[in-house]
This record gives sequence, structure tokens and C-alpha cells, in this order.
Amino acid sequence: DGGSYDVINDASSPAAGDCCAQQSSARHNWEMNYQEAAIYLQEGENNDKFFTHPKNAKALAAYLFAHNHLFYLMELSTALLLLLLSLCEAPAVPMLRLGIFVHATLELFALIVVVFELSMKMRWLGFQTFIRHKRTMVKTCVLFVQFIEAIVVLVRQTSHVRITRALRCIFLVDCRYCGGVRRNLRQIFQSLPPFIDILLLLLFFMVIFAILGFYLFSPNHSDPYFNTLENSLVNLFVLLTTSNFPDVMMPSYARNPWSCVFFIVYLSIELYFIMNLLLAVVFDTFNDIEKRKFKSLLLHKRTAIQHAYRLLITKQRPSGISFKHFEGLLRFYKPRMCARERYLTFKALNQSHTPLVSLKDFYNFYEVVGLKWKAKRNREHWFDDLPRTAFLIFKGINILVKSHVFQYTMYTVVAVNGIWILVETFMLQGGNFFSRNVPWSYIVFLTIYGVELLLKTTGLGPVEYLSSGWNLFDFSVTLFAFLGLMALAFNMEPFYFIVVLRPLQLLRLFKLKKRYRNVLDTMFELFPRMASLGLTLLIFYYCFAIVGMEFFAGVVYPNCCNTSTVADSYRLVNHTVGNKTVVEEGYYYLNNFDNILNSFVTLFELTVVNDWYIIMEGVTSQTTHWSRLYFMIFYIVTMVVMTIIVAFILDAFVFRMNYTRKNQDSEEDNGIVLEKEISKEEVVGIIELYKRSSAATETAQLQKIVLQMDKYGQMSTVFLGRRSRTKSDLSMKMYEEEIQEWYEEHSRKEESQTQLQEPTSASNNSLKPLSLRQRSQTVI
Amino acid sequence: DGGSYDVINDASSPAAGDCCAQQSSARHNWEMNYQEAAIYLQEGENNDKFFTHPKNAKALAAYLFAHNHLFYLMELSTALLLLLLSLCEAPAVPMLRLGIFVHATLELFALIVVVFELSMKMRWLGFQTFIRHKRTMVKTCVLFVQFIEAIVVLVRQTSHVRITRALRCIFLVDCRYCGGVRRNLRQIFQSLPPFIDILLLLLFFMVIFAILGFYLFSPNHSDPYFNTLENSLVNLFVLLTTSNFPDVMMPSYARNPWSCVFFIVYLSIELYFIMNLLLAVVFDTFNDIEKRKFKSLLLHKRTAIQHAYRLLITKQRPSGISFKHFEGLLRFYKPRMCARERYLTFKALNQSHTPLVSLKDFYNFYEVVGLKWKAKRNREHWFDDLPRTAFLIFKGINILVKSHVFQYTMYTVVAVNGIWILVETFMLQGGNFFSRNVPWSYIVFLTIYGVELLLKTTGLGPVEYLSSGWNLFDFSVTLFAFLGLMALAFNMEPFYFIVVLRPLQLLRLFKLKKRYRNVLDTMFELFPRMASLGLTLLIFYYCFAIVGMEFFAGVVYPNCCNTSTVADSYRLVNHTVGNKTVVEEGYYYLNNFDNILNSFVTLFELTVVNDWYIIMEGVTSQTTHWSRLYFMIFYIVTMVVMTIIVAFILDAFVFRMNYTRKNQDSEEDNGIVLEKEISKEEVVGIIELYKRSSAATETAQLQKIVLQMDKYGQMSTVFLGRRSRTKSDLSMKMYEEEIQEWYEEHSRKEESQTQLQEPTSASNNSLKPLSLRQRSQTVI
Repeated sequence: DGGSYDVINDASSPAAGDCCAQQSSARHNWEMNYQEAAIYLQEGENNDKFFTHPKNAKALAAYLFAHNHLFYLMELSTALLLLLLSLCEAPAVPMLRLGIFVHATLELFALIVVVFELSMKMRWLGFQTFIRHKRTMVKTCVLFVQFIEAIVVLVRQTSHVRITRALRCIFLVDCRYCGGVRRNLRQIFQSLPPFIDILLLLLFFMVIFAILGFYLFSPNHSDPYFNTLENSLVNLFVLLTTSNFPDVMMPSYARNPWSCVFFIVYLSIELYFIMNLLLAVVFDTFNDIEKRKFKSLLLHKRTAIQHAYRLLITKQRPSGISFKHFEGLLRFYKPRMCARERYLTFKALNQSHTPLVSLKDFYNFYEVVGLKWKAKRNREHWFDDLPRTAFLIFKGINILVKSHVFQYTMYTVVAVNGIWILVETFMLQGGNFFSRNVPWSYIVFLTIYGVELLLKTTGLGPVEYLSSGWNLFDFSVTLFAFLGLMALAFNMEPFYFIVVLRPLQLLRLFKLKKRYRNVLDTMFELFPRMASLGLTLLIFYYCFAIVGMEFFAGVVYPNCCNTSTVADSYRLVNHTVGNKTVVEEGYYYLNNFDNILNSFVTLFELTVVNDWYIIMEGVTSQTTHWSRLYFMIFYIVTMVVMTIIVAFILDAFVFRMNYTRKNQDSEEDNGIVLEKEISKEEVVGIIELYKRSSAATETAQLQKIVLQMDKYGQMSTVFLGRRSRTKSDLSMKMYEEEIQEWYEEHSRKEESQTQLQEPTSASNNSLKPLSLRQRSQTVI
Repeated sequence: DGGSYDVINDASSPAAGDCCAQQSSARHNWEMNYQEAAIYLQEGENNDKFFTHPKNAKALAAYLFAHNHLFYLMELSTALLLLLLSLCEAPAVPMLRLGIFVHATLELFALIVVVFELSMKMRWLGFQTFIRHKRTMVKTCVLFVQFIEAIVVLVRQTSHVRITRALRCIFLVDCRYCGGVRRNLRQIFQSLPPFIDILLLLLFFMVIFAILGFYLFSPNHSDPYFNTLENSLVNLFVLLTTSNFPDVMMPSYARNPWSCVFFIVYLSIELYFIMNLLLAVVFDTFNDIEKRKFKSLLLHKRTAIQHAYRLLITKQRPSGISFKHFEGLLRFYKPRMCARERYLTFKALNQSHTPLVSLKDFYNFYEVVGLKWKAKRNREHWFDDLPRTAFLIFKGINILVKSHVFQYTMYTVVAVNGIWILVETFMLQGGNFFSRNVPWSYIVFLTIYGVELLLKTTGLGPVEYLSSGWNLFDFSVTLFAFLGLMALAFNMEPFYFIVVLRPLQLLRLFKLKKRYRNVLDTMFELFPRMASLGLTLLIFYYCFAIVGMEFFAGVVYPNCCNTSTVADSYRLVNHTVGNKTVVEEGYYYLNNFDNILNSFVTLFELTVVNDWYIIMEGVTSQTTHWSRLYFMIFYIVTMVVMTIIVAFILDAFVFRMNYTRKNQDSEEDNGIVLEKEISKEEVVGIIELYKRSSAATETAQLQKIVLQMDKYGQMSTVFLGRRSRTKSDLSMKMYEEEIQEWYEEHSRKEESQTQLQEPTSASNNSLKPLSLRQRSQTVI
């Protein structure tokens, strides 16, 4: 099928008109169509709703302005600036304290930038859509409040209680780059209803047990935990986190051993049953949401492709897209793509043996457009072109480093090294480790690793060597170890810490077992999602940190809280025993809300939930007992997020393991690979096309391929398209059968909608013309 | 299809011979066949392997002796006696201490009973099979050891260190009634390999971080947690359980705030990632095992049915089982079943319109045999037969109690009651609650509940009222409340605790929401499995308690452990401040291993893992630091069991929710219901049959049905068969498609085996004649 170049000379007009220019030439018209199609495809990819699609030329300009990385970076940096301001505002981190005038001005500046961003968005969306877009409206309101408050601060020259600072997070959440966080938040809110149901069950049992506990244990006057109903409730809430466990039981247990039954029953019901139920419910909801999300995204992409398709077909040839128009689309959709890749993408899409890409083929657009194309090498190794002797030497090294013997020898060396380090450290027993000379074992092992690195680099070629993640890891660890040796040898104190990283070498041992490889691979696949979940947690932390600082800054200090039951933990006393001064230190005064960094650490400690009641009781004893609400709400919020994180990890791993089990017979996969052959004739044809549109760089690129072919005397070159497998690919395979059903259901629904809206429409392929499209149909 | 009674007169000989009697009459022969078929079906139901099938008449007698509830109860009580002995052996619970002579004699007696049980088992299995049966062999060895030790104790008149007492659990595990525990243990062992893999990953990171922590923090002399590598390791192990969390960080955090990064990274990797990974891996394995178990059980049952079928068909009519033989089978399989039910079961199985049950129909045996049959009532309410006026009154009450208004009024009353109790308790604030008069609110609410109960009982009829679990719950709670009132009114102090149960009324509110009903239903369905999981945990507890008592009994006491860092928790000091004596009590000396009950409580505290290091350090400071191994191993074992419990709850709920989602459209189900009509002719036919075999009671029973029919002038009666839905039914529906594949695969495998074993076999239905069957084929 080398005839695709003859469809290039096609100056026909588009089948569907573009949205803005109504009286321009066909050429300009096409350009607008390309651009709009590219926008549709972007919207499909980003899961942006189509009602935010730009509606006229002005909107389009604003859309383009607001959709590039420069603008995104501006958004992100403004949001970060606003968030980071809390480092400098009172109560500030001591080193970073700024004058009120300085930080308020900075804040006003950042807010003005946000105003500018929002006005661009309004221009693009139009006032109507802008109002309807909920997230943007919330952002506008927050902006308004922040603005007023910033001005008030500037005028009064003093900070008032500004809990609203907690709302600054919305600026970060709204960033284009934080799509993952938005998705997580949506998922959290969607999981909430069943979560709250079970939470109520939990609280209900807690109340019942609190009443029971109060009746049973309050007659015991040495029991401070159940003397009032409020204490009873609070202590059972803390018991839910097990944080006060044996202690809360001890006074009653000392009096009557059978009272342990109360606590065992409570913990069995609440902790071991209902808490797990919570996880089960969230996990189940999560599973369900993931599947529905995948489905809606899939159908959204499909609709986007349909819209784009409609803009790219001509009236003369309504059955498909020619390369010329496809190339035009890609110019806007992926400006960085070179001419060769564009043509290869077109060929990869085109399953029929006609020069046009049909709608059915075009549906694979997103799967194909991400492929990275490379000419298939004929040479196997990097040293194939070297002289005979050198070739043989390198070939020998290549065989050596690929042999099992070499690999297992290295594993043994690593294991020995690990045991060595362990024994050495065990023998050390304190003292200053770094003032000693460089130990000879360190040099020996490092030499072995160095030789290994050298052999592998030469045997495999640097490119192939570094293309494996594991090798990259080996390389960096060895490099660090070497830097550590340098630091030791030349006595560069600040770099001593590198020496400490030596045990990381041991991680290499985990390549040995398939399960670990699987786990680590999944870990790397999960990393982006995990990071966005972490960021989501940090955003919650930020909100709570601001609130905590506003209310609890400076309330705990050494030797505070003497009226509470946890006074010991806040103690800082200097005894003089004989001649020595013994410092008795409880340290808990360090867990305070005195600045945002301290608050974050305190909140992390609250997240871990062990001994969190000491922090709670400390703060409560210095403020009111309503402070407990803050800590309890924080616990519940982190419980929600943590449960979602657990559900996510569970889901991801179980999914992956199911996938592996289902595809046990298929070989180990290295992502998606596609092979396409291009003949010289085709390349020449495309060069012709580019020449006509006077695209010099593209022509030059393609010329190079022809030269290459001439050099090796080939009539055609095979190219390989590669990309890594994504979760979406896995899901596609897992839900294979259901997907067909979804498609059918979707097209049936659309057809019925089309029939309802315009019974006279004769458009094929069940394409639903958009409403905004209908207005500009006149162009054709 | 009323012709089934004419197949009764069938004195033909069985197609397959029985195992024992070779020269008996056809009648006796048939009886033996019935019995053996019943044994096969029992083996299928209990998932007993067929190689334990009794092989001759002596074995059969032993089998029958060892397979009835009397024998099972003996087994169970012997095992319990042996386990409970540890209450009386030194270190004994003070109240239950027995002399060495007494408890050693008791032990010997119990062991002799076990010997008797084992000899019966040997008689039934034969020596060869007995040796091959692993569990029995282990039991024999343990028995032998216990026997020798018991004699040694009796001779020396003093207890030596008897850790082997921990092995007594095997006697309980081997009980027929503890099948669930055996299944759990098997599941735990099957989940171990992947679990251990991830555990190694966990420990590996722990070692790396321990080395890092030692290097980083040991220069700080005020940090007792990282001063040696061993401490570093132990503290990071404890940190994994979060039990020492902010404390372990504090000394280094006080010195350098950035050291918190070390702990945050450690906890994020170990606690939040790898621990969840552990759960994911166990959950996944669990899921997989559940499915495979279901499959193997299903196929095992199928094979059992095939074996039984072969024993029940005659040479003359090889295409099915006649009622006569089916009835003979049921006489052995379910002796308690009455003649009517036997016939109904036969009819329910028989799908074809022939008088014989084919193999295909017979495959449903287990599903049908559990049904409880009842004649379908024509009257709707219990009061339909009453006079007009009474009928109208009761009808009115019936409509009232079924109305939504009534139900929601009751919910409101319960809610108001709940709030009332809460407020009342809140106002109380300490004091002796029980010396007061009966509060009027109590009487009012109790009266309302009493009236509700009365209305419901009369409106629905007592039988229908108590057939619902929720009503039963209402009834018992109201009864308890009434008993509490009596106790208060008549000042019966020991029953005061019943008053405390009042808040349980509030649980009724959970009927309101579908999710809660679902949760509670699932909870009840899960209860047997949960109980057996709990028992499994208790068995582990028992083993650890014995070991703990042998090593640590009496090592902790008030004011011990002064050399350790946790000395405060073990303190018991009387201060005299002014005139008052203030008792400063750490209470932790109560968490000891001084007798088995204390050990259990201590182990539960270790399971909850909060502050468990205080217990560990206390014991360690009084013994050697190797004691830590005991606590760490216990932590890991409970972690395994707890993870399995979590995985089980997760699996059960997710399965249930998936099932509900899959069958959303189908109405709410009340278990399995089957309807069968029996004509008078058929009943008369069966009476004939029973008369011939002179079974008087059966004849009388059936006669009654005929009389009933005559009374109402019916020619036939409809019977309803009911049973509750089991997990197996749900699984059947969930794996519907796969099950067919399994069957085909199974029968294919069997056919090929049959062909391999005896290529001349012409038996139809792909039945594989058993090897033990071949020996007795001569009878036919």
C-alpha cells in the first residue's frame, strides 16, 4: 500500500466548518479545522468537558494562551508562592521571618497574577460557562476573600486570625499539573457516602460502649478514664486508635480482672471488625469508581475522536482522513513530532489498504500517537562496526556480562558485602566513625563494583546499559559509593553522609526473585499516583496546619500542662545527682504548632496515631476541651485518606497480580511495540508534499532517510514504535469483553439522541454533530 | 408424572457390589450398598479424601463407630479437658490449683481416651492408610510424648519445663467439629510463601535503616534508642508497629529537626507501603485459594455423587436410581428424615418425566437434600379461622404493625429513647446509679416497647413474629430491659448489670438503611467463619501462653525492672503527701505470664501492639535479651493471622457487594425455595411400598397426609422446600460460566484416566470405577 502519497494533492474543503473564521480562504479554513480538531483531541485526553470548548476566535486565542506550559508554570508558581508564604507569615519559621509589609505585598502580587489567570479563563470560557464551572467559581470566591484580607493586613500592618489561609490550597488544586490531586479529591468525595455510613456505625457503638463504660467503671475512683461521660467517650475514641490501650484498661483490670472483657469486646467489634469493614467498603467503592472512571474516560476519548474526525474529513471524501489533513492535525496536536513520525503514525493507524484513515481506524489515535519511532537496527551490538580484534574482545565481554555465572557472582559479592557491613557495624559499637581511615573492605568492594560497571558499559554499550532501570540504579549507587570514598579520603566532612548509603547496594539482591521484580515494577508504575496521593495528603496537612497555627501556636512549652495527666511528657528538669547534672526531658513540647514546619511534623505524628492523645491532652490542658474536636476531626480525615491509600495500593497490586495470572503464558512484555515498513517511494511522495507547502526542515529530515536507504541499498526501512504499557492498556485488556458492550450502548444512546435532535441528519458513522458546530455549518 | 410408585417392586441386584459382604442375600447386599453410598456422600460433603474409605466389614464397623456425634463429643471433650488442664497445672490460676497427682492422673486418663480414639481410627483406616495420614501421625507422635511426660510428672511428683504442653492444641485441631480451624490453618500455611517474601523485604529495609540510624544517631549520647546496632534494630522493629513512635524520634529531633526525615521515610516505606503490600499479597492469595478450594470441593462432591450413583443403579436399569433405592440411601444418609420428605427430595431431584433419577439429576443431590419441606398453607394469617369480629380486630392490628407509619413511629421512639439515655447519663456525673428509684422514663419507654411487642405478636402470630431475626432481637432486648426493671424494683443487686444493656435498643435503628441491613446480614453469614478464625487465633495464643508461662512466669512484679527504661510503668509506690496517701501505680506488672488467664490478657495486649514494647522491655530486663525473640515472633505470627482475618473480611464483603451489584434487579431473596406438588395416588403408592417393607411409623406418617387431603377434598398437595442461601450457592452463581469448564475438564481428565486404567470398561456416564470397587465386582 504505497499509494498514500497520491491523496496529498487535495484542496477540497472540509466537511464540517470551523468555529470562528467564516469568510476566509479554504487554506485558512483548514488550518482552523486542524487546530480545533487538535483541541478536541486534547480535551479528550485531559478529560476536559466539551462545554468548555472555545466558541469563537477570541475564545480560541484565550484558550491557546491559557493552554501551554508557560501558562501552566505561571499558575503553579503563583500557587506555590501563596502556599509558601505561610513559612514567612507570623508565626513564621524563625529563619524565614519577613516583615508584614513584605509578605502582604508578595501575597497581593500573587493574587493579582491569579486574577489575570482567571480573566484569561473567563475570556476563553465566556461568562455563561465561567459561572457554570463550579471549581472556577469557588476559586473566584476564595480569591476575593484573600484579596480583601491581604489588603486589610496591609492597612492594619498586623496579622489577624486568618484561618482562610487554609483555603489557599485551592489555587494549587486548580493547577493544570495537579490533575491527579483533583482526581484523588473527587475519588475521596465519591467514597465518602458509604464511608460515612460505616463511620456512623462505628460512632454509634462507641457511644453505647461509652455509656456502658461510664456505668461500669465510674464507681472506681482510681480510674481517671471513665469518671465522666465525656472522658469515657474521648477515651474510647482514643482506644479506637489503640493509642492508650493497656493504660485505659489497667485501673479497672487491677480492681477486677474480668473487666478486660469489656475492652476485648470493644476492640474486637470496633477495631477488628468495623474498621476492616470500613476498608472493605472503601475498597469496593474504589474498585467500582475506578472501573466507571475508566469507562467514562474511554467514551469521552471516543467522542473527542469523533468530533476531531468530523473536522478532518472532506465533503468529497467523507469516508476517511487523508495524510495531508492528518499531518495538519498533528502539527497542532504534537508540534514537536518530526515529519517521519507523523507519517509513521498515519501508517500505523491505517489498517485498511486505502489511502484514507477511516473512523474505525482513527479510534486508535490515542494508543498510536504516543509511540516513539526508531529505525530497526540491523546491527545487534554497538561494536559490530569495529575491527575484528576489538569486536571479538567486546563480544567476549558481552557474553560474559550476559552470563548467569557473572550475574550470580555479583549477587554473591553483594551478599558478602551486606554481611560484611552488618558485622563491621556490629563490631563498631559507637564512637566517631568518620575520623578513622578508609577501611580496606570498602576499597575492595568498590573496586569490584567499578570493574563490573566498566565491563557492563563496554559489553552492552552505554546506551543499552543505561536503558535498564536496574542498571541505572547500580550505576548511581556505585557512583555515590565512589563519591563517599573520595569524601573519606580527602576528609570532606559535609559529604560523609554518602558513606552511610552503602547498604543500598543490597537492594540489588531483589532482582533475584520474580515476585520482587513484580513488586518493584508495580511500585514504579504506581509512583505517579502515589505521589499525587501524597500531595493530596499534604494539602489536607496544610489546611490543618494553618488552623492549628492560628489556634495553638505557642500554647505548649517545656513544663507546661502540669494540670493534665500527661504532664510528664512535657517536663524538662535539670536534676543534680551527686556531681552530674541529669536532664529529665519529656520532649513532647517539641510537638507544637509554632510554625508551619513544626505543625507538619506534629500532624505526621498525629497521622501515625501512636501516643497522639499526649499531644491532644497537652494542647487541651492549655486551651479548652473543644480543642479535642480539632484532633478528632484530623484523625477522621487522615483515616479517610489513609484508607483510600490502602485501598489504592490493594487495588493496584491485586489488579496487577490478576493481570499477570491472566497472561501467564505470554512472554514478559516490554511495553507496546509496533512494526511498520516504509518504502522509498512513499518517502519521496511525502517529500513532494512538504516541498509544496515549503516546509524546509521537514523536507530535510525526510531527505536524510532517503540518503540512509540509498547508502545501505535498501528499498524500504522498518521502523519500530515503542511505548511503555500504561494502566489504561492493562484495563483495556482486562475489560476486553465489557468494552465492546459499552461502545454499543454508547453509540445506541448517541444515535437516539441524534434522532431526537435532528431527525433529518444523514451523517454516517453515528456521529453526533455538536450544537456549537451547527451554528457554523454555513462555511462549507 | 405420577408413575413413580410402579418402580418400587424392583428386587433386582445392584450394578456395583458392596465392599464387605460377599455371600449374602440381595436384600442384605442392597442394605450394604445403601450404607456405602451414604458414606460416599458424607465423605463428599465433609471433603474427606476417598482413600480413607472403609475397605471391609470390620473397617466399616469402626467407621460407623467413629462417625457419630457421641464419638465426636468424646473427642472434643477429651481435647478440651487436656487444654483446660493448664488452668490447674503450676503456674495455676490461684482458685483452680490442683495437686500434681490429681492433674497428672486426669491427664493420663484423657490421654488414654485419645489412645482409644486413635485405635478406632486405625481399625477403620487400616495400618497402611493410618501411616500415610499425616495429621494422624503427628497426633500419634504428640500423644506418645505427652504420655511419657505425664508419667514422668506422676513419678517425680513435680512439674518440669513442659513446653510440649503447647502441642496439646493438636488434639483440638483434629476434632471433627474443628474442621473450620483446620481449613484456616491450611489457608494460613498456603498464604505463607508470598507472605514470607514480603516479610523479608520488610526486614531487609529494616536492617538497612538500622545501619543508617546507627551511623546517624549514635553520636548523640542522649539518644538511648540507637546507641548499639542491636538497639537500633529492636527500636526500628518496634517502630514498625508505631508503638514507640514519637518517643524514638524525639532525642534526635530535639538535636536536629531534619532528623525527622529519617523517620518519616522509614514509616512511609515500611508501614504505609510494604505493610499494605503484605495485605495486598495475602488478600490476592486468599482470593485465589478460596476459588481453588471451592473448585476442588465442587469436583470432590461430584465424584462422591458418581460413586454413590454407581452403587444405587441396578444392572437391569442402568440409566437411573429408583425411589426404592433412593429411599434406602436416605435412610442411612439422613436417618432423621421422614418418609414424606424422602419422597419430596426424590421428586425434587427428578427433572425428567421418568420414574428414575438419572446421574445428571443426581448431581444436584447436595443442593436438594438440605431443603426443609412444608405443606404450602392456604391461609395467609394465623387468625383466618377465627370468628368474624376477632378476625377483623386482628386484621386491623396486622395492617397497623405492617404499616410504615407504625414502623417509623417506633424508630422515632427508639431515637428519642437513645437521646434520653445519653442526656440522662450526661447529667448523672458519677455516684452510685443503682441505689436510686426506678426512673419514670425507663418505665414509659419500656411500656411502649411492651405494647409494640404485644401488637406485633398478635398481629403477625407468634410463629411469624419470631421467624425474623430482627424481631427476635427486639424481643430479647425488651425482655432484658424488663428483667432489669424487675431487678431495680426488687433491689436484686446481682442483676443490675442488665440495666446497663438498655442502650442496645438503639441498634434497632440500623434496620432503617439498606447498607446496614446488608452489613449485618453479612456479619451473621460470616459469623461461623469468624468464630473459627477466632478459635484459630486462640490456639496460637494457647501455644504462646504455655511457652510464655514456662519461661516468664513470675518474672515481673511491682517495682521490678528498675534497670530498664520502662521502670516507671512497673512502679507501685505509696507517697504520703500531707495527710493523704497517694498511690503511684504503673500497673504494668499486671501484664504478666503468671497463669494462663493472665497470659491470655497479656497476649491480647501484645496483639493490639500499642505499648507492647513496655511489656517486652520489662520481661527482657528481668531475663535475657533473647526474650525479645519471643515477643517479636509473636508479633509476626499475630500479624499473619490478623492479615488473614482482614483479608477474609475484605474478601467476604467485597464478594457480597459484588454479588448484590450483579443481582440488583432480582428481588430480595429469602434463601432457596422449591415447590413440588404431590398427588394422592403417589402417596398411596408409597404407602404400599412401606407396608411391604413393614415400616410402621413411615406408613402412619404418610397415612396422615392422605387423611389431610381427604379432609380438604384435594387431589394433591403443594409442598415448599426451603433453606437459607450459603456461600457455596453464591459462589455457584458467581462462577457460573467457569463451573461448566471445570466440569468438562474434570470429566475429560477422568475419561482419560479410565481409559488408561481399564481400556475395556464399557461403563457409561464417564464413571470411573474405584480401585477398591474392582475387588468386589464379583458379587453382581
